[in-house]
Amino acid sequence: MTGSDLPSWTDGPAERAVRAFVAAATTAGPAFIDVADRIAAFDNDGTLWSEQPVPPQFDFVFRRWGREVAADPSLAGIQPYKALVEHDKAFFARVLAQDPETITALLSAFGRSWNGVTPADFDAEVRVWLETVKQPKFDKPYIDLVYRPMLELIEFLRSHDFRVFVCSGGGRDFMRTFAEETWGIYKENVIGTAADYRYVDGTIVRTDSVLGGLDIGPGKPEHIFAQTGRLPVFAGGNADVDVEMLESAKFSMIIRHDDDRREFAYTSGAERALGRAAVLGWTVVSIAEDWSTVFTGGR
Amino acid sequence: MTGSDLPSWTDGPAERAVRAFVAAATTAGPAFIDVADRIAAFDNDGTLWSEQPVPPQFDFVFRRWGREVAADPSLAGIQPYKALVEHDKAFFARVLAQDPETITALLSAFGRSWNGVTPADFDAEVRVWLETVKQPKFDKPYIDLVYRPMLELIEFLRSHDFRVFVCSGGGRDFMRTFAEETWGIYKENVIGTAADYRYVDGTIVRTDSVLGGLDIGPGKPEHIFAQTGRLPVFAGGNADVDVEMLESAKFSMIIRHDDDRREFAYTSGAERALGRAAVLGWTVVSIAEDWSTVFTGGR
Repeated sequence: MTGSDLPSWTDGPAERAVRAFVAAATTAGPAFIDVADRIAAFDNDGTLWSEQPVPPQFDFVFRRWGREVAADPSLAGIQPYKALVEHDKAFFARVLAQDPETITALLSAFGRSWNGVTPADFDAEVRVWLETVKQPKFDKPYIDLVYRPMLELIEFLRSHDFRVFVCSGGGRDFMRTFAEETWGIYKENVIGTAADYRYVDGTIVRTDSVLGGLDIGPGKPEHIFAQTGRLPVFAGGNADVDVEMLESAKFSMIIRHDDDRREFAYTSGAERALGRAAVLGWTVVSIAEDWSTVFTGGR
Repeated sequence: MTGSDLPSWTDGPAERAVRAFVAAATTAGPAFIDVADRIAAFDNDGTLWSEQPVPPQFDFVFRRWGREVAADPSLAGIQPYKALVEHDKAFFARVLAQDPETITALLSAFGRSWNGVTPADFDAEVRVWLETVKQPKFDKPYIDLVYRPMLELIEFLRSHDFRVFVCSGGGRDFMRTFAEETWGIYKENVIGTAADYRYVDGTIVRTDSVLGGLDIGPGKPEHIFAQTGRLPVFAGGNADVDVEMLESAKFSMIIRHDDDRREFAYTSGAERALGRAAVLGWTVVSIAEDWSTVFTGGR
């Protein structure tokens, strides 16, 4: 049943599990899923593109904060700028561990950086970063490190009447900048941690507050329900912050980063997720074994 | 240029304005609009179905609150239950006038009524109402009082690659119950005032708080931007609470309720909107003159 629609997948258990689920979901029978219910949701960092050595948006944000500290050195005394200046990785790891105090410090800094910005200005700032900054290990723009097999999977699902959403802890507006040209997904199908905006004098302007909480952990199914009115039937992730989203779906896949030569090999931040995968029978996608090609390589 | 795709519209200035805008937006030239930007947004109450003598959701909510007052008569002493018991229409009119105190009282009562409810339970409650309650003037279920010309317009826009959203001050989840079967619009394209939900023990459960503020006035473009990452290029409304949404679009239409025989005739709550329409050249749709048929009549 393999075919050229998933050419970057090897003919292994992961690809076969995806095809079996989709075939059953779209064929009359006990596992058939109504077209209206065919919602798929994918995490972004580590699921649709590389998240090492840091999630790409961290690179974008850290450069901005670096400029802010240069302009106002007193910032170096407070978090999160202090952690940035001191290369305190443990501080940022506490975000993924969902530590409230760390998250508050980060959100406050986000608010400070982009309060009052228009969508067009933010979009332009992200585009400069996309076009000029290169990921250190591969010396390529981050956008070239999108996983080709995942783009094929998105298209495969869409060709079977699934509506595909990206649901990331990262910034909604950051992802929406490149979603359409990179993933072929409209902005409205991009869900993420979101700034709140006000409509003032005919213009949308960003505020310093967050709309609807962080899109990690239980926040993922909450955000998906708020955006779509449903929980997903198909979900893909790679980390502990994806566990609740994966648990909320009928078919769940988790990317295992086990290819240090072509990408990275790590399980940090995914220990609980990989444990749940084994217990709940989620499909584990080995980058080393299940993908014949990893990156899109070009825009 | 008229055709059978808008059969319930008379060949008048409103229909011609719609066709001219869509033709220009979809033809190479100075008014062409990229497919990605083709977002249309319609208010619901008074724009897609009748909102007299009260918006249908008020009927649904008032019946629920009536049962709550019967079970606990002490509620009759506080708002909004007091206004309900005393038939105090002025109180509820202050919602549309965006009075903060009135809105707080209403939201608090919404929270009290549906806190802890699952989507499936809420859906079932709305369906009972849809199937059993009749609108007093026409003695028909409210769902039969959807405007046939507007359904044709939605389909006309979709056939030209517009993505159509409903954006109402009314409850998002209330509308999502019937959106797909009634409008042919997926739940994710329904934007409205929304309860916040939590994901607890594998289930989405409603809380007593609101996510993202009321979807009226400036809240409409704010909600549309949050959901879609864009402002609409085509917008339709009928009331003062739609003004900001209509101002945010390239093409704006406003429904004028001027047909007391077939529907209702009123301008209350639309004075400012009709004034802006005249100043800004919005297309005014006269129910009496522009629609040959008003209601869908059946499910």
